[in-house]
Amino acid sequence: MAVPTRADLTARLGRLRQRITDEGLGGLVVTHLPNIAYLTGFWASTGSLVVKPDGCVLITDGRYRTMASELVASGRGPADTSLRVVERSHEETLARTLAEAGDVRLGFEAAHLSVRTHQHLQQALAEGAWPRGEVPTLVATFRLVEQVRAVKDDLEIDTLRDAARLLSSLEGQVRALVGAGREERQVAAEIDAVVRRAGFERPAFDTIVASGPNSALPHARPGARCLSVGDIVLLDFGGVYGGYCVDLSRVATIGPPGPDARRLHAAVIEAQRAAISVIRPGVWASDVDGAARRVLAGCGLGDAFSHGTGHGLGLEIHEEPRVGKRDPDRTRAAAAGADGPLAPGMIFTVEPGAYAPGLGGVRIEDDVLVTADGCEVLTGMSREIWVQDA
Amino acid sequence: MAVPTRADLTARLGRLRQRITDEGLGGLVVTHLPNIAYLTGFWASTGSLVVKPDGCVLITDGRYRTMASELVASGRGPADTSLRVVERSHEETLARTLAEAGDVRLGFEAAHLSVRTHQHLQQALAEGAWPRGEVPTLVATFRLVEQVRAVKDDLEIDTLRDAARLLSSLEGQVRALVGAGREERQVAAEIDAVVRRAGFERPAFDTIVASGPNSALPHARPGARCLSVGDIVLLDFGGVYGGYCVDLSRVATIGPPGPDARRLHAAVIEAQRAAISVIRPGVWASDVDGAARRVLAGCGLGDAFSHGTGHGLGLEIHEEPRVGKRDPDRTRAAAAGADGPLAPGMIFTVEPGAYAPGLGGVRIEDDVLVTADGCEVLTGMSREIWVQDA
Repeated sequence: MAVPTRADLTARLGRLRQRITDEGLGGLVVTHLPNIAYLTGFWASTGSLVVKPDGCVLITDGRYRTMASELVASGRGPADTSLRVVERSHEETLARTLAEAGDVRLGFEAAHLSVRTHQHLQQALAEGAWPRGEVPTLVATFRLVEQVRAVKDDLEIDTLRDAARLLSSLEGQVRALVGAGREERQVAAEIDAVVRRAGFERPAFDTIVASGPNSALPHARPGARCLSVGDIVLLDFGGVYGGYCVDLSRVATIGPPGPDARRLHAAVIEAQRAAISVIRPGVWASDVDGAARRVLAGCGLGDAFSHGTGHGLGLEIHEEPRVGKRDPDRTRAAAAGADGPLAPGMIFTVEPGAYAPGLGGVRIEDDVLVTADGCEVLTGMSREIWVQDA
Repeated sequence: MAVPTRADLTARLGRLRQRITDEGLGGLVVTHLPNIAYLTGFWASTGSLVVKPDGCVLITDGRYRTMASELVASGRGPADTSLRVVERSHEETLARTLAEAGDVRLGFEAAHLSVRTHQHLQQALAEGAWPRGEVPTLVATFRLVEQVRAVKDDLEIDTLRDAARLLSSLEGQVRALVGAGREERQVAAEIDAVVRRAGFERPAFDTIVASGPNSALPHARPGARCLSVGDIVLLDFGGVYGGYCVDLSRVATIGPPGPDARRLHAAVIEAQRAAISVIRPGVWASDVDGAARRVLAGCGLGDAFSHGTGHGLGLEIHEEPRVGKRDPDRTRAAAAGADGPLAPGMIFTVEPGAYAPGLGGVRIEDDVLVTADGCEVLTGMSREIWVQDA
């Protein structure tokens, strides 16, 4: 991944520790792997991180011992971090680490800890013969790291800007793959190859190539259907670059677009333009969605837009901010991370769509950065219908 | 995915309902997506399934409305299934569906429900004004569907056998990619392209190409390092075929192997042979691991084998059975799904490895099916060191 310096990590942990203190907690047990990667620069398939006021403990298993030791020893990892390698089970090692914290209130990530693991930790803390006698109280927290992550730092913005530019540069190569007689899944596989050859580590999600009636399914899986004359073809693809995800959708037709394709496309383009035009700090995410939704409703396509307008991008392909329908109870939505005011440094997709079952669908998706007084659109392929030779 | 017939689904649900009854429950809320796919043939990125004695309720969101409706209407889905599309939030729709079950004990998947969602459901059930007045009691369950899934049915065995054969047929194409001067990540990307061109839906996990000292990191990520003369190159790759995952590791050297590579390889091959030779119904998974571990310990490489011997394969790349170290408390390990007796129809990897930090590592991995009286090795590339031209 884009390698954070120790200064970057110190800043990230500083923002997080402020939130931990605000919640009246003495530390936080981080179990969501992208959150651990963000805070340490260390990506593993299992692990946890205990963030304390004066340092961190990183727990991982034997497969990652060498990598994690190097990180800690090199000075690239977060300051004052010790490493603990799992012996018997992750939960046991974690319980032992927590018990050492003594009698404090320790937050855990309630959205990223299973009921089962939580029960195990509670039981281990209650039943273990711990040296200090007193054990921490586990307190459910929500979105502590996610809210810090929602506002990207300079390293992340640079990385995502480069990633978006690189993805956008592939327009010609991607278009060359879309033609009559080719299977959806073949086109999808070749888009992935183009993305990787360009320097992305991997596709950011399962590439969508949905043709004809399949394009009306917003999350279709590419199948054996062959692209044929008259089809709308919905393309949704992305890449991971330096650990960060970018995401883009465009629409092609095989041969000249029919009236349905033109009508859907014109409405979606206008909806996207309206959404992008309202983005600036302080505007609520749901107002961006509302701007897109109003345009589509005005075109008689209100019901045809069956998903939210966008999602944050970063170490995960879906993260905060969520850009969706306005909830009548705005306070509740904000607490749930479903809505909230935009801030400079947020990066998210703007991807309105309209789907006519049986006929086809259109989605146009770009990635934007909230700036001090508006936004910067990071992606840049042609938004017109890509008319491919029949 | 390999499309289960209604009869397949009825059999799967029949085995699950027996377990639900054995637990004294009136139904099960399934929230783990691969479990939902297994029971319904429906794969989505969000959803839940309520399994009741007389039918099922499938909950998904608007993006999947068309796909899910077709499944239910076509007769391909599970019998007596109704569909419910999320309106306000998934949790709210799920709570409403659960409340309708009335005063019963309903299991939930404790390993696949977050503390947060569980709290929300509990609260919604406690506070809602539900028509029937009485609401279900949620009971934590563990591994109910997973244990059913651990024993593959005929459709799954045929699919995994075909997938393993297809992967094995790629030996020549994969070997052709491994050469001096090529970057690890370039080789990995091209292996993925080969896998997809062969007919796999996608790679089953992030392909590992780890060269020289990197090969000593069991879960290295392919990077910018160039393969060079004298390197051990560890290759670990797989594919998803009809929704099912296969997984294979082999080792190459650039130029003739040195004494370290030969020593590690010979020990690992012998460990794998020993492990495979003990596989048959009734043998515990940890005995398979023990057979491999004894060989490596006998070669002075006990500490060099830092992971378990294998993992189940199916709709997920890691599932039951787990083939790992013997726990002194076998009953506890069995209850945790970490160990247990093998049964015909189980399919898992056998992948001992030995890693010498700084020098390099070797892992040889094949996929096996437990048969009535032994096992069938499903994968078949050459297990010798692949000696590549320098």
